[in-house]
Amino acid sequence: MAAKQDPEALAAARPLLTDLYQVTMALGYWRAGRAHDPAEFELFFRQCPFGGSFALAAGLRDCVRFLRAFRLRDADVQFLASVLPPDTDPAFFQHLRALDSSGVTVRALPEGSLAFPGVPLLQVSGPLLLVQLLETPLLCLVSYASLVATNAARLRLIAGPEKRLLDLGLRRAQGPDGGLTASTYSYLGGFDGSSNVLAGQLRGVPVVGTLAHSFVTSFSGTEVPPDPMLAPAAGQGPRVDLTTCVEAWLERVCAHLGLGVQDPHPGERAAFVAYALAFPRAFQGLLDTYSVRRSGLPNFLAVALALGELGYQAVGVRLDSGDLLQQAQEIRGLFRTTAAQFQMPWLESVPIAVSNNIDEEELARLAQEGSEVNVIGIGTSMVTCPRQPSLGCVYKLVSVGGQPRMKLTEDPDKQTLPGSKAAFRLLGSDGSLLLDVLQLAEEPPPQAGQELRIWPRGARESCLVRPAQVEPLLHLWVQQGQLCKPLPSLAESRAFAQLSLSRLSPAHRRLEQPALYQVALSEKLQALVHRLRAGASL
Amino acid sequence: MAAKQDPEALAAARPLLTDLYQVTMALGYWRAGRAHDPAEFELFFRQCPFGGSFALAAGLRDCVRFLRAFRLRDADVQFLASVLPPDTDPAFFQHLRALDSSGVTVRALPEGSLAFPGVPLLQVSGPLLLVQLLETPLLCLVSYASLVATNAARLRLIAGPEKRLLDLGLRRAQGPDGGLTASTYSYLGGFDGSSNVLAGQLRGVPVVGTLAHSFVTSFSGTEVPPDPMLAPAAGQGPRVDLTTCVEAWLERVCAHLGLGVQDPHPGERAAFVAYALAFPRAFQGLLDTYSVRRSGLPNFLAVALALGELGYQAVGVRLDSGDLLQQAQEIRGLFRTTAAQFQMPWLESVPIAVSNNIDEEELARLAQEGSEVNVIGIGTSMVTCPRQPSLGCVYKLVSVGGQPRMKLTEDPDKQTLPGSKAAFRLLGSDGSLLLDVLQLAEEPPPQAGQELRIWPRGARESCLVRPAQVEPLLHLWVQQGQLCKPLPSLAESRAFAQLSLSRLSPAHRRLEQPALYQVALSEKLQALVHRLRAGASL
Repeated sequence: MAAKQDPEALAAARPLLTDLYQVTMALGYWRAGRAHDPAEFELFFRQCPFGGSFALAAGLRDCVRFLRAFRLRDADVQFLASVLPPDTDPAFFQHLRALDSSGVTVRALPEGSLAFPGVPLLQVSGPLLLVQLLETPLLCLVSYASLVATNAARLRLIAGPEKRLLDLGLRRAQGPDGGLTASTYSYLGGFDGSSNVLAGQLRGVPVVGTLAHSFVTSFSGTEVPPDPMLAPAAGQGPRVDLTTCVEAWLERVCAHLGLGVQDPHPGERAAFVAYALAFPRAFQGLLDTYSVRRSGLPNFLAVALALGELGYQAVGVRLDSGDLLQQAQEIRGLFRTTAAQFQMPWLESVPIAVSNNIDEEELARLAQEGSEVNVIGIGTSMVTCPRQPSLGCVYKLVSVGGQPRMKLTEDPDKQTLPGSKAAFRLLGSDGSLLLDVLQLAEEPPPQAGQELRIWPRGARESCLVRPAQVEPLLHLWVQQGQLCKPLPSLAESRAFAQLSLSRLSPAHRRLEQPALYQVALSEKLQALVHRLRAGASL
Repeated sequence: MAAKQDPEALAAARPLLTDLYQVTMALGYWRAGRAHDPAEFELFFRQCPFGGSFALAAGLRDCVRFLRAFRLRDADVQFLASVLPPDTDPAFFQHLRALDSSGVTVRALPEGSLAFPGVPLLQVSGPLLLVQLLETPLLCLVSYASLVATNAARLRLIAGPEKRLLDLGLRRAQGPDGGLTASTYSYLGGFDGSSNVLAGQLRGVPVVGTLAHSFVTSFSGTEVPPDPMLAPAAGQGPRVDLTTCVEAWLERVCAHLGLGVQDPHPGERAAFVAYALAFPRAFQGLLDTYSVRRSGLPNFLAVALALGELGYQAVGVRLDSGDLLQQAQEIRGLFRTTAAQFQMPWLESVPIAVSNNIDEEELARLAQEGSEVNVIGIGTSMVTCPRQPSLGCVYKLVSVGGQPRMKLTEDPDKQTLPGSKAAFRLLGSDGSLLLDVLQLAEEPPPQAGQELRIWPRGARESCLVRPAQVEPLLHLWVQQGQLCKPLPSLAESRAFAQLSLSRLSPAHRRLEQPALYQVALSEKLQALVHRLRAGASL
């Protein structure tokens, strides 16, 4: 993995996107002659987000991209020299200049995997100074990606498989890259697409979008389109003046709806016509700039029916205010009567899209049985994860020079699990997940069908478990700086996430007060923890 | 403002970091022959964040950087072509290719200004198609920057002027750029520095950092430093073996503290010695890797006193767990007795730094009268703004072709104020802020000492006000794509923010249940709203 210049990687995270203490510690390690000591860190979280019992692992592709481009430029090293003591040995800066990721090995959960507290999302090993320096950017890249993917997965579980879920949160994101990360990993977590064009361009996320209120208010109705003529969808037959055609349909629609033809706002109608001329095959209406019932809806219907006469079918309406569920019911009802009245049956099923500060509770309401809402756009609640805006991952040293290391702080929640480890997921005979086991890397893997003694975390006693299947959790992705196997595509990881979630028992998948998924230690790991805690081996 | 390639701007926000509907609307405008219609948008928020009565405006420098670099590259246009209808007129893509910011004019609140609901942070005017396209990136750049600056200002108000406040939140940020933005604008809002090295390199934020638990746990105590010798601070006299010197001091310290010399962890001490060898003039100890009282503190004191003998003064300790306030009191007490015992008076006042999930409540506790805490590092609560992770700014069309525009939705909270406007801040004779007034751009500005009839927002009646001073709020920064005057430096904006806050009355500055700061409309603006609401002019 040579340090080639990848502008995308530079845009995402640069080597100096790190905490200064990584650099001061680097100097400390270097001065102590320990820069090259082989070390291993684990990146994990201590508690599942949002009060749930699971998280989805994500961000590995960004970590790999970052590692591939990892190299301190001259300007970077000069800046570091300016904030370190003036008498710092120049050889230290030479050492920094020569750093790249060629000594780094990364094992990780595949993206889209279920992740549980204490199970490493990433294991990073390599020279002590270097893998220490990587801490902050790796945390930055994994924590938020995993948080967003988990948030999206929860929203998908609430919405059910049928509703289209769209990320509209870019403008609410915490900084530009927050937006790009959110759009990418909300797709991984189960969304159908995003409004974020850059996520489409750089990450292949399906992008969606139609029109905003400003487009509607920009028209007063006095504008004359330079070319109002539209050819029929099939391409045969004469071109028609859409504006005239829409005005004729407006009368019929208003009569049907019991409205005066003066009621619908002419500027809104002009905007819809302009949009229809640009997108005759993908016409959508935004209904609530003025009055939905008296203006947005009749204007939409007039344009949709005029297009319908030419063989085009409108593809949707959007509501961005008011009681979205109730309005959707009313609109669907009017679509049905109008479709029957004018013999345009496709109109019945024009998708209804909604947006406007939708959170988990409102989503549950919109997704209830009988809802006529088809597409749900979520902004702030998707990208900022307001219920818990940070996953709080940590990156802890577990071994150095082949010796296990442990943080033995007086705060038991902050103690770490020592040693280079392997992790396995144990499954029942029906393929459902039983629990995850952490053990020392040198131990033989658990065997399917064989009894295993384990120590569930937090329990005072060991217990026996006999898994029907055993899956290793941590895959080798980067060895000595070389990518070992291609990363799955984003769409593949998305499918894997949905598969993973489907294997979780309903009690664990429940979003409120779920059953706790167990993570256990092998007997040897448990013994090591005890020994280090007792200070015996230190 | 030519479209020169600024890699920083590209890293921050690119033209395609936008919602797809901006692009579909662009095609709509273009097809309607309206691409060049002169238009004006306002960027504002509807409600102050965090339950307070003010916000700080921020993000303008990022907007200017973005505008300066705004240009769609060929790859961008090709991507857009791939998501628009295949029969889209190629002339539209030619139009996109030729876009730059040379027609854009921006008025804005200076960075660090107090901002209130409905008062534009930015006024953006230019060709309709272009200024519409700018919506999402500008929202993305201003909203979070302002939110973070406001959050930092609140935390500074709680902490008081003396405590050093540090942003340690990079690893908890919502994506890498979220981290860079947070570190930059927390400084603007009143923090003293950040751990984020990139914010130092790119934005000039003072950077800080010492050591983490991993550094401490990486040492077992058996390591031998390649060069344990240290010269005295004054540079004269023989070099001393610091390790030996520290062991000698450990005995004296343990005797003083009533501990056995076996109690302090030898690995922790080795880590402190390694750090001291690298940073003899900036030695700090992280005390809570093992036991603060039995290990971290005696080890720190042994190293600090050994350094003291050589003429170096330790610069701090840090605590990252437990009851931070209480531990700081105890540590300060032990610093005092130890300083007296060993006649090292500087030790008494070694700064005590704390961190660990500090929020507004905990900060208030740590900043209380008599607290011995000197430095407070805040991570998650600073960067993710968990109490309200999005400011919810909007960007609304207020005029097109010289005609006022208004969104007249049935949801009164979402109605907009029409017309190109000016904004003024009215002050009392003591320099305190009275209220902000929005009026139409063509109206003469309010005059100091003259009575003015205004309509406070939400009120049913007008009232009279006689300001002693009047300040125009919106400055012209970018005219026809040219930067009109240099932007203040980040440090200048930081000072301006503190000055602005000092002019706010205590009732408005209060963080919980503050008095509402009034924003009012001029009579003419109020009349225009009425006229448009009545549909008279449409």
